[in-house]
Amino acid sequence: MNDFYEATLRVRYAETDQMGVVYYGNYFTWFEVGRVELLRQMGVTYKEMEDVDDCHIVVIEAKCQYKRAAKYDDLIRIRTRVAETRTRTMRFAYELLNEGGEILATGETTHVICDAQGRPKTLPEKYRTYFPLTPAAQAGNA
Amino acid sequence: MNDFYEATLRVRYAETDQMGVVYYGNYFTWFEVGRVELLRQMGVTYKEMEDVDDCHIVVIEAKCQYKRAAKYDDLIRIRTRVAETRTRTMRFAYELLNEGGEILATGETTHVICDAQGRPKTLPEKYRTYFPLTPAAQAGNA
Amino acid sequence: MNDFYEATLRVRYAETDQMGVVYYGNYFTWFEVGRVELLRQMGVTYKEMEDVDDCHIVVIEAKCQYKRAAKYDDLIRIRTRVAETRTRTMRFAYELLNEGGEILATGETTHVICDAQGRPKTLPEKYRTYFPLTPAAQAGNA
Amino acid sequence: MNDFYEATLRVRYAETDQMGVVYYGNYFTWFEVGRVELLRQMGVTYKEMEDVDDCHIVVIEAKCQYKRAAKYDDLIRIRTRVAETRTRTMRFAYELLNEGGEILATGETTHVICDAQGRPKTLPEKYRTYFPLTPAAQAGNA
Repeated sequence: MNDFYEATLRVRYAETDQMGVVYYGNYFTWFEVGRVELLRQMGVTYKEMEDVDDCHIVVIEAKCQYKRAAKYDDLIRIRTRVAETRTRTMRFAYELLNEGGEILATGETTHVICDAQGRPKTLPEKYRTYFPLTPAAQAGNA
Repeated sequence: MNDFYEATLRVRYAETDQMGVVYYGNYFTWFEVGRVELLRQMGVTYKEMEDVDDCHIVVIEAKCQYKRAAKYDDLIRIRTRVAETRTRTMRFAYELLNEGGEILATGETTHVICDAQGRPKTLPEKYRTYFPLTPAAQAGNA
Repeated sequence: MNDFYEATLRVRYAETDQMGVVYYGNYFTWFEVGRVELLRQMGVTYKEMEDVDDCHIVVIEAKCQYKRAAKYDDLIRIRTRVAETRTRTMRFAYELLNEGGEILATGETTHVICDAQGRPKTLPEKYRTYFPLTPAAQAGNA
Repeated sequence: MNDFYEATLRVRYAETDQMGVVYYGNYFTWFEVGRVELLRQMGVTYKEMEDVDDCHIVVIEAKCQYKRAAKYDDLIRIRTRVAETRTRTMRFAYELLNEGGEILATGETTHVICDAQGRPKTLPEKYRTYFPLTPAAQAGNA
């Protein structure tokens, strides 16, 4: 339903491990890149969300399904979309593809909006425009 | 059901981010530490599994639920257990606790045993002793 | 003397630490990015050097002088040049700048060309064209 | 002259790269571990230096000489000593050894004591006891 936003990155040597592929934990850093670039393309700078509005997108759950290995020097395409928005939580979905268009991995992260002290807060109205609440029918009743 | 094996580690400055807590992707490195130390305590050195028996525990799925932030210099207790063993896959479950015994995160990783070229293979008998197949009744029929 | 080649990257949240700036070890990953992009712009793909010609650029020394902190979301400009080339070693020099053109850090890395087993080897002729030996008068007599 | 303090760590899979050895940038994380454990063994907790006394040990220079590759699962011994202490700067020296006692790498880091805003400050007296100024005859006149 929601649109995918895209970013690309080049796999660094530092991101590989001795199996000759990208270390599994590094995919979550790439999810971060996808998330931040989605925001930027929407018109929101995450740095400003933190610095100006004291809104931190704190992760409460993350998962990744690994399909094909990402390799050194690959150009990775990160497709990110907002999967669900509730009053206090947001869920992003990700797809990672190589240059041939093959899906390397899919994943999701769920976040709570918090202040600098880690206390949950409501997303300010100025950002809510970008992230309208997912209709209840679609999201369930929780 | 299966026993937890424990390892501890000290949070490094390198592992924190500017929110003043550990970056979410680093928890997956700690899961790796827990997994390897479980193996070692069982009597299996993962380095030998790779070098001598060409068995690589390749991840196909990983997830983490974040409950409380891990902080710089915390002594983290990693509790790891084998959650399920099938002919070609293994699933590990993890709990991360701080010194006060509070749970910081839980997670799971699922793996396929592969050779160095990434082709799935059956776990050799010498390792099967350590990882008996989960009874079908418990694991489902797949 | 030698030309600088440029690359840019965006600072990731993962790269910051709790001091609110980029962790000092991550600058060396950025040097790697600069080095690889210098090669690419010259017409050399480092991945091919490794895969096709069994040439690995193994580091034997690395240093960095930190002038100003790199911050989250900064667009970093990496300027890299070949500082010296000898029969078996190569030295690269780096400058990191922020968008305002301020120098954040300078550094150098020295490398030996090795095969996959880590044995030093002479750089093949096909690459030597790109990296002519530094004249003795300029490099010293070693 | 000054004593070495020791710490040990086990090489993580995450720390290796596709050359089958530890990525060169990760040695600087290990230097951090050595530095922090030197402080702890002296009786100083770096976390408290930051949290209680607003003293941040900000790096201004770092270097490493790589002699032998660190490998996955190696038990690394980090030997750290205070190489020089001046009014506003401190220099630490490091040696990394494997279990066989072979030196893998040596290095140094130089630091300025700063407050949370990154402004240089004098090391408080309570810490000066642990880090007496290096005699001028030994340190040069700067």
